[in-house]
Amino acid sequence: MIKTDILIIGAGPTGLFTVFEAGLLKLKCHLIDALPQPGGQCSEIYPKKPIYDIPAFPEVLAGDLVNNLMEQIKAFEPGFTLGERAQTIDKLDDGTFIVTTNKGTKHHAPVVAIAGGLGSFEPRKPPIANIANFEDKGVEYIIRDPELYRDKKVVIAGGGDSALDWSIFLADVASEVTLVHRRNEFRGALDSVDRVKELKDIGKINLITPAEIDQVNGNEKLESVLIRKNNEASEEILLEVDHFIPLFGLSPKLGPIADWGLEIEKNAIKVNNSLDYQTNIPGIYAIGDVNTYPGKLKLILCGFHEATLMCQSAYQRIFPDKKYVMKYTTVGGVTGFDGTKKEAPKAVVKAIN
Amino acid sequence: MIKTDILIIGAGPTGLFTVFEAGLLKLKCHLIDALPQPGGQCSEIYPKKPIYDIPAFPEVLAGDLVNNLMEQIKAFEPGFTLGERAQTIDKLDDGTFIVTTNKGTKHHAPVVAIAGGLGSFEPRKPPIANIANFEDKGVEYIIRDPELYRDKKVVIAGGGDSALDWSIFLADVASEVTLVHRRNEFRGALDSVDRVKELKDIGKINLITPAEIDQVNGNEKLESVLIRKNNEASEEILLEVDHFIPLFGLSPKLGPIADWGLEIEKNAIKVNNSLDYQTNIPGIYAIGDVNTYPGKLKLILCGFHEATLMCQSAYQRIFPDKKYVMKYTTVGGVTGFDGTKKEAPKAVVKAIN
Repeated sequence: MIKTDILIIGAGPTGLFTVFEAGLLKLKCHLIDALPQPGGQCSEIYPKKPIYDIPAFPEVLAGDLVNNLMEQIKAFEPGFTLGERAQTIDKLDDGTFIVTTNKGTKHHAPVVAIAGGLGSFEPRKPPIANIANFEDKGVEYIIRDPELYRDKKVVIAGGGDSALDWSIFLADVASEVTLVHRRNEFRGALDSVDRVKELKDIGKINLITPAEIDQVNGNEKLESVLIRKNNEASEEILLEVDHFIPLFGLSPKLGPIADWGLEIEKNAIKVNNSLDYQTNIPGIYAIGDVNTYPGKLKLILCGFHEATLMCQSAYQRIFPDKKYVMKYTTVGGVTGFDGTKKEAPKAVVKAIN
Repeated sequence: MIKTDILIIGAGPTGLFTVFEAGLLKLKCHLIDALPQPGGQCSEIYPKKPIYDIPAFPEVLAGDLVNNLMEQIKAFEPGFTLGERAQTIDKLDDGTFIVTTNKGTKHHAPVVAIAGGLGSFEPRKPPIANIANFEDKGVEYIIRDPELYRDKKVVIAGGGDSALDWSIFLADVASEVTLVHRRNEFRGALDSVDRVKELKDIGKINLITPAEIDQVNGNEKLESVLIRKNNEASEEILLEVDHFIPLFGLSPKLGPIADWGLEIEKNAIKVNNSLDYQTNIPGIYAIGDVNTYPGKLKLILCGFHEATLMCQSAYQRIFPDKKYVMKYTTVGGVTGFDGTKKEAPKAVVKAIN
C-alpha cells in the first residue's frame, strides 16, 4: 500500500505543479498516470510543439515545460505509479481514500486531486476482430520500452508522426521493421518523412502502402499478420512478425473516474464555484482541464492556479486545527524534503569605516 | 486623449500578462504605472531576487520575469503611461471610462482592469519640515533618469541596496556624491557594500556616518543641506548640493483608487466570487494582489489566471453580440498587432514512393 498526503491522478503539468505547491505546505504527493512517463499530453502527444501562452515564456516546447516542472518539484520527492490507470476509489470510515489501479496497485491518502486532463488517453484500435486476444502478447498500442523490440520482427501501422518516428527509431533496434499505411501519403514533420524514405531506400524499413492489416494470427502469442494491399484480396501478404504496433493516435476518455460518484457535466467534473475546486465528494478535488465551473478555461496556466488554491484547502482538511501562514518563496526560500534549501542571497549588514 | 480597449492600472506581472491574453482576443491594452518603468515591485524593489514559485521556472530573477513578460507581449504593442498615478475615474453615459493621472493625462476605455498590486509605491520621506517645497526642485525620492545628475553635486541618504547601488552608479556620473546614513552599518548585497568602501577609499564617494539630514535650504531650488553627525549640534556640516535623494524605501498605498467607489476590504478591492474578477462597478475589474475574494492568495501565478479569465469577460462586455471561440496557441499560433506571426511548424503531407 502506497501512502501519501495528496494522491494526484494525472501527471500532466497541473498534477506536477501540485507537487510543488503541496511541498511548500510540507505535504507529500504521489501521482498515478496511465501513460508510461510524466507530462500527460505534453509528453505523449506534442513534446516538440511550442506553447506560447505559458506566462513569462514567449515560447516553450511542451516537452521542455514538463522537464522544467520535473526539475522544480524534484526536491519534494514525488512518488509515481506510471503506466497504470486509476480504476476504483473507496472511502474509509475515517474519511480517507484508497485508490486502486487497473493493475491492482493500492494507494492510501486523505486527499485525492484529480488532475486527469481530458481523461486517460486510450489508443485508437484497428477494427480487427480477434486483436484483443493478442494484446500484450505481441500487440502493443503504446511503446513503453523500445528494448522489448530488440532483434524482433516488428510491423507498425499508421501514417502520422508516431508511426514515422518509431519506425525510424526501431530501424536500429529491431531485426526487421515493416511500416504499413492505408495511404501513400504520410502526415508528419518533413524531416521524419524524408528520413523514412531514406531508410526505405537502403532497405532498413520495409514500406507497404496503400495497405491495411486485415488479420492477426498466432497461438499463445502473435505469430503473423495478414496485410491486404490496394484493398485487393489478390494482394494479400502473410508476414511473420513478433510484434504488431498500431499507432493510430490516442483519444481521451474520462474512463473509470466517471463511475466514482462525482458530478459530471459535459465529460468534465463539476467543482464548487472555483473557491477551492473541491468536488461533490469532500476530500476529492478536480483541477486543470478535467474540471468545470462557470467561466472555466482549459488552459495550463489556469490549472497552475487551481492546483495552488486546492493545496491550501487540502492542508485545512489534513490539519483542521493548524493555521498555515503563507510565506513568499522570495522571502522564505524553498526547503525540499531531500534536505536541499534554495533561498535568495541574504543581505549583509556591514559597517564601512 | 489616449484610447484603448482595456486600460490597465499597474504594470506589474499581472498587468503585463493581461496584454498577452487580451491580444489573443484582438483587444488592445494601455498601462498606467506610477513607477518610471514596467514590472512593478519586481523591477523596483527586488529585480535581483530569485522567485521560486512561478510555474515551470525552478528559479527566476524578478527582473528576468519582467523581461520575459515584456518579450511575450511585445507583438501586442501595449501603450504605457509611466511615472504617473491614476488619480480619478469618470464613467460616461455610454458606460465607458475616462481615467486621469496626477499629471493630467487622460485615457478612455470601455474596460478598466486594476492590477495595482499592493497599491502605488510611495516613497518614505524624511521628517524634514519644509522638504515638500523642494520636491522636483532638487529633492527626488525615486531616480527616474540618472542623466539628470550629470556633473551635479548629489547627496544620497539611506542604508539599503538602493542607496548603495545608486551611490556607486552616480559616482561615475555626478561631480560629487555624498552618502549619508544614520548608522555605520549598511544592509545590502555584499558586493555593493564592498564597492562603496572602495569608492570611498579612492575619494569618489564622500561617506558621512552616522549622520542625518536635518535641514534643506534654498530659494527657487535646493542649494544646500544641513547634515548633523553623531546626533551632535556641534558636528553640523552645511553641504552645498544640487540634489538631495532620500532613498528610504517605498511603501505601498492603495491611493486615489480607494476613492473610486469600489468595495474595499482590508485594503484590497472586493471582486465577485472569482468568476471574472469584476468589481461592484460593471466594467471595472480588479486582478492580482489588489483584489480579494474567498480563498484569495496573493501570488503572481494567481494574477496570471485572474487576468486570463478577466479578458474573456472584458471581451463579452466590449462585443456583447460576438461569441469568442478559444483556440489554443499550440494549434492556432499567435498573431501580433505588429504583423508578426508565431506558430508551430506545420506537419507535411507527403507520399513516400
